[in-house]
Amino acid sequence: MKVPVATSAEMKEAEKFPLNISDFTNLIEVANDDNMDKNNNVKRTDEYMSMPWFGIDIGGTLTKLVYFEPKDITPDEKNTEANSLRKIRKFLTKNSSYGNTGLRDTHLQMDDVDIRNRKGSLHFIRFPTSEMSSFLSLAKSKGMADLVTAVCATGGGAYKFEKDFMHELNMKLAKFDELDTLIKGVLFSELRHTTECYYFNNARDIRNSQKMAYDFSRPYPFILVNVGSGVSLLAVYGPNNYKRISGTSLGGGTFLGLCCLLTGCTSYEEAIELATKGDHTKVDKLVKDIYGGDYARFGLPGDLVASR
Amino acid sequence: MKVPVATSAEMKEAEKFPLNISDFTNLIEVANDDNMDKNNNVKRTDEYMSMPWFGIDIGGTLTKLVYFEPKDITPDEKNTEANSLRKIRKFLTKNSSYGNTGLRDTHLQMDDVDIRNRKGSLHFIRFPTSEMSSFLSLAKSKGMADLVTAVCATGGGAYKFEKDFMHELNMKLAKFDELDTLIKGVLFSELRHTTECYYFNNARDIRNSQKMAYDFSRPYPFILVNVGSGVSLLAVYGPNNYKRISGTSLGGGTFLGLCCLLTGCTSYEEAIELATKGDHTKVDKLVKDIYGGDYARFGLPGDLVASR
Repeated sequence: MKVPVATSAEMKEAEKFPLNISDFTNLIEVANDDNMDKNNNVKRTDEYMSMPWFGIDIGGTLTKLVYFEPKDITPDEKNTEANSLRKIRKFLTKNSSYGNTGLRDTHLQMDDVDIRNRKGSLHFIRFPTSEMSSFLSLAKSKGMADLVTAVCATGGGAYKFEKDFMHELNMKLAKFDELDTLIKGVLFSELRHTTECYYFNNARDIRNSQKMAYDFSRPYPFILVNVGSGVSLLAVYGPNNYKRISGTSLGGGTFLGLCCLLTGCTSYEEAIELATKGDHTKVDKLVKDIYGGDYARFGLPGDLVASR
Repeated sequence: MKVPVATSAEMKEAEKFPLNISDFTNLIEVANDDNMDKNNNVKRTDEYMSMPWFGIDIGGTLTKLVYFEPKDITPDEKNTEANSLRKIRKFLTKNSSYGNTGLRDTHLQMDDVDIRNRKGSLHFIRFPTSEMSSFLSLAKSKGMADLVTAVCATGGGAYKFEKDFMHELNMKLAKFDELDTLIKGVLFSELRHTTECYYFNNARDIRNSQKMAYDFSRPYPFILVNVGSGVSLLAVYGPNNYKRISGTSLGGGTFLGLCCLLTGCTSYEEAIELATKGDHTKVDKLVKDIYGGDYARFGLPGDLVASR
């Protein structure tokens, strides 16, 4: 394992970059059949931007779909827009659940977002990746195959399901690397919603801890820990300069898998709900359960978890 | 978390120490009522060495008892030794299980060991720490309270159960810090049995991997990972010079707890036996389960476990 320490050159480089909107001129890409090269990499162009705009992140456990809803539609535009486009917009924004397992996280919604000179809202929808075939059928039934020829996609599933999207929806996946996208996404949300990055003050005393905005105005270098099904640890030195320094296979997939097997629950929400009612000190082995008190010589207090 | 890197001074210091028996003149202590100070720390003395010699490590999950069986008993000695002492020796060495849960690991036995000018065998006995009261009753019934006034003890339980030993057996625990003891124990076994420290050659290909002796003749600095109920990581620079650099609460306690809850097994042996029959690829999520193949950009092969 490489030790996550920045070289002095990297530190110097990192200091040059305060967080700046100009880093993101290439952040928002709208994929279409005509602006991708033969490897489905997106070429920059401002010409093809026909709605609807989607992005999709197909992870090992969950698929996350982001949908841009334009709020500045002119009467003229409304008259000329395709009927199926209007239908899709209404279907997505009037509902917050889709099929048996699709959910829209209304609390994550970002309004008044400015993307490519359009104003609107970003909606965040998710469903279990295991339900991909139901999603493709639903998307087909809503006329997606007629409207969208390509969609920006990331996560491992962008590779794994590329053929299924083509076969079911005649849709190309414009693939972006998930770690590149992750960093751009973090920086984008921070710039548009400066309260997205936070920490807990007084975190050891959970009842008296407070959620505090984190000053992310000069962020580099920082460590980014991405807890997905598995976990990646990145050292980020600048908007386009980072290393994957470590990772672990004990992550969200482990948590959910164990919760389902141990409690019979079937979803992450249910697991969290059950956890809020539990008392970890009844199942964890604390330092004081082993020592009868603190292990003072190495500064380990009696209430510290020795073994989960 | 401190980064586990030795300073150049520490490295220089470490190089001075090839592994040497002279480091261990204070390794083997025999505790008696008369060679301990008022805090139950053992004072060095060669006077009181009456048998039996025991050491005990009372961990969060298991208690490990080491017993020295002298093999050089002279006929004179045999005639004068206490009847209860002979009984204890026979009880421990003729059996390999004690009560319901006590076990002697015969495969770990170390013969021809030279301790304080006596030749003999070291026997390793263990039982669940949760059975401490049964152990104390058994020891009492075998006459231990009459023979032994103090025993060298380490692990958290040396602190937690100190009063119980005094109350049940009238026995003092001469307490040694568990991490100090751990390092001395590793160095001692290596010196007496040079095959104790090994690694697997070709470890990624489990069918063709080979157990190889590790050359531990100039060991410093080394990282020692102690997987108990919880886990401690030590950086060891010399026989008496180390730091606890990190640790995790995901350890043997987590493994055993989860195995028991998930499979209904009741012991570590049973869990290992079940595991040898299993196939992790059926429950782990591999990189290829997410990507459909390798995640080549970051060197993660398809068969790598992404999420356990």
